[in-house]
Amino acid sequence: MGANDIPNDRLGAFCRENHVALTHTGQGALDGLTFGTKDVFHIAGTRTGFGNPDWLRTHAEETLTAPTVQSMLNAGADMLGRTLSDELTYSLSGENVHYGTPVNSAAPDRIPGGSSNGSAAAVAGGLVDFSLGTDCGGSVRLPASYCGILGMRPTHNRITTEGVLPFAPSFDVVGWFANDAAIFERVGAVLLDEPKSNDSAKRMFIASDAFSLVDSAVSEALRPSVERLADRFESSEELQVSPDGLAAWFEVFRVVQGSEIWGNRKAWIEEVQPTFGPGIRERLQWASTIDAATIAKAQGEHTAIKAYLADLLGPHDILCLPTSPRVAPLKGMDTDKLEIEYRAQAMCLLCIAGLGGLPQVSLPLASQDGLPLGLSLVGAPGSDMMLLALAADLFVEASI
Amino acid sequence: MGANDIPNDRLGAFCRENHVALTHTGQGALDGLTFGTKDVFHIAGTRTGFGNPDWLRTHAEETLTAPTVQSMLNAGADMLGRTLSDELTYSLSGENVHYGTPVNSAAPDRIPGGSSNGSAAAVAGGLVDFSLGTDCGGSVRLPASYCGILGMRPTHNRITTEGVLPFAPSFDVVGWFANDAAIFERVGAVLLDEPKSNDSAKRMFIASDAFSLVDSAVSEALRPSVERLADRFESSEELQVSPDGLAAWFEVFRVVQGSEIWGNRKAWIEEVQPTFGPGIRERLQWASTIDAATIAKAQGEHTAIKAYLADLLGPHDILCLPTSPRVAPLKGMDTDKLEIEYRAQAMCLLCIAGLGGLPQVSLPLASQDGLPLGLSLVGAPGSDMMLLALAADLFVEASI
Repeated sequence: MGANDIPNDRLGAFCRENHVALTHTGQGALDGLTFGTKDVFHIAGTRTGFGNPDWLRTHAEETLTAPTVQSMLNAGADMLGRTLSDELTYSLSGENVHYGTPVNSAAPDRIPGGSSNGSAAAVAGGLVDFSLGTDCGGSVRLPASYCGILGMRPTHNRITTEGVLPFAPSFDVVGWFANDAAIFERVGAVLLDEPKSNDSAKRMFIASDAFSLVDSAVSEALRPSVERLADRFESSEELQVSPDGLAAWFEVFRVVQGSEIWGNRKAWIEEVQPTFGPGIRERLQWASTIDAATIAKAQGEHTAIKAYLADLLGPHDILCLPTSPRVAPLKGMDTDKLEIEYRAQAMCLLCIAGLGGLPQVSLPLASQDGLPLGLSLVGAPGSDMMLLALAADLFVEASI
Repeated sequence: MGANDIPNDRLGAFCRENHVALTHTGQGALDGLTFGTKDVFHIAGTRTGFGNPDWLRTHAEETLTAPTVQSMLNAGADMLGRTLSDELTYSLSGENVHYGTPVNSAAPDRIPGGSSNGSAAAVAGGLVDFSLGTDCGGSVRLPASYCGILGMRPTHNRITTEGVLPFAPSFDVVGWFANDAAIFERVGAVLLDEPKSNDSAKRMFIASDAFSLVDSAVSEALRPSVERLADRFESSEELQVSPDGLAAWFEVFRVVQGSEIWGNRKAWIEEVQPTFGPGIRERLQWASTIDAATIAKAQGEHTAIKAYLADLLGPHDILCLPTSPRVAPLKGMDTDKLEIEYRAQAMCLLCIAGLGGLPQVSLPLASQDGLPLGLSLVGAPGSDMMLLALAADLFVEASI
């Protein structure tokens, strides 16, 4: 199948060189739905590109289809195409220097966010009903916020990552996007192999340190949604999530993440000497310099933070925080500005669920000057279906 | 290359149907050494068997060589063959109903232990200088004890598992075996990408609950080595590792492990309906029944245990415990007896490092009635090279 067979790709969301489409193999909860799959999931008989032409060139056809993709096909969904990824998934911007930037339909002059940029853009622009992505540092949650759609990061190690290119296994998860909350929940039920939940959260924590970190205009834009949400629960209260400061938590996250990225990719990078875009190049260079003592210290801190968060959130607690400190930035922004104002600040919010292994759903509940802003709900490990049921409830109400 | 080209395989340690040998691709720390690689590491252009004929039959040639295998070749070592694994690695016995039982040279009428059975047997019998295995629940440490060789489980998430068939990623690590402690340390330096350590442990904890769990004859056989070891440190003291009981920890381990195994393997098992040997079949059946609430509870307990262990062991502490409650059992033992007396008891000891993500080295320092017994040292996360230096020191002294 050639590039011209890619369906309706007015947004540049699909991969062209290694395009693949797959028809459903069974019937079930996803009958009649269409989806896209990020270019980091292996599909038998095709090459995975990992967002980088040197990767695509130096890798042969895969022999395994990721079980997560297969389960979508088995449940009745048709895969329309493979969606663009940031290079090696080491970015949150969605501006791929090699393949371009998928159009963010909610804000066409702005970036879609990444690294699951194509999957987010395809859902936001209505090319597919849902899409699969991966989230290590925020690669589903942030683009969901930027594009004004639903995005899910599930509990760590609950959904198999087999057949998915690893990035930093301490944090890697398979995630998904949808516009429709009922579809969003159904996809989750298939991936998690769990029935829909009748369980409800009872208490909401409002993450005071997370809200303090974002611009006051963003905080103000989110406030009405936070208040409406708070009314749904038996109680709500402000809570400082990190006693150490969120910046310190991000530092722990980025060291553990960087060490694992380098461990996984060192051999290939040293052999192939690939060309990377700005930002990604510098981050990989930095990851190569982390020494063993620094890794060990950060791993220890990660363990302590994970336990702290597990104690903080009970099974009927919800933590509410901004998905992102800002709306999507304009395309072509200066790299340093993007790195500091957008990446580093966003990671202070996004690293919470990552470090805790916690499920997080980003909900398109707000906007600022007409641009989408996600509000996030984080739950205890294993509360994934409860979060999805809450999302479905909220949007059924919204559509009435 | 046909089955007859398998080198000197008087022990039945190498895979025959998917045999592969690889010549070194560089020079370095492992010049002139030979090794074997467990049949769960992918090697480009060949099929991985995972210890099960149905797996081998239903999988095509791989396109990627695991970076860990490549790093051995790049450092100068020659791979002589692929070594036998227990089915899907879900056993500790080393008795593969499809492919037979590699000979344990230290005790030829007894099992070698598994699931890295071929890798352990090949080193114990002198077929190779070292070998690569994997350890989730004890698949390197237990066979090292049974075969009287050195076996290493490194800190979790420190060595890439890319290109290695996943089992339960919360615990999966790449490990290795050797007879010679200097080689054992050099292999570790390459895999961990770290220099040799000059650091020394200062305090030894003797795991009182672990020693209480084993037969008194085993405990007595290990005692002289424990006492000699204790003299090397500034202090040593008895310590109860688990406040909850080691059996409770094993239950947490087996639920988290089982849930991830089923998540990874469900699709293939349901499609192919493969034939499994006793023990493995029952464990997979059980793993398929674990519900989401049970998983969530066990994941939470895992997080708490990991944090508890991280607090317990400082960077210069060593925890000393028996690797196994017993010497290797005779071949062909009754399945129920093997399950309860050998597997369940051993897992109470082996789950400690697994739950903590901690490095553990099993040292062939004792014997009972002429049969090997390993003594294990567990360190804080990241203390891998310190453990290997200690092992090298001990065996240099022993050989003088």
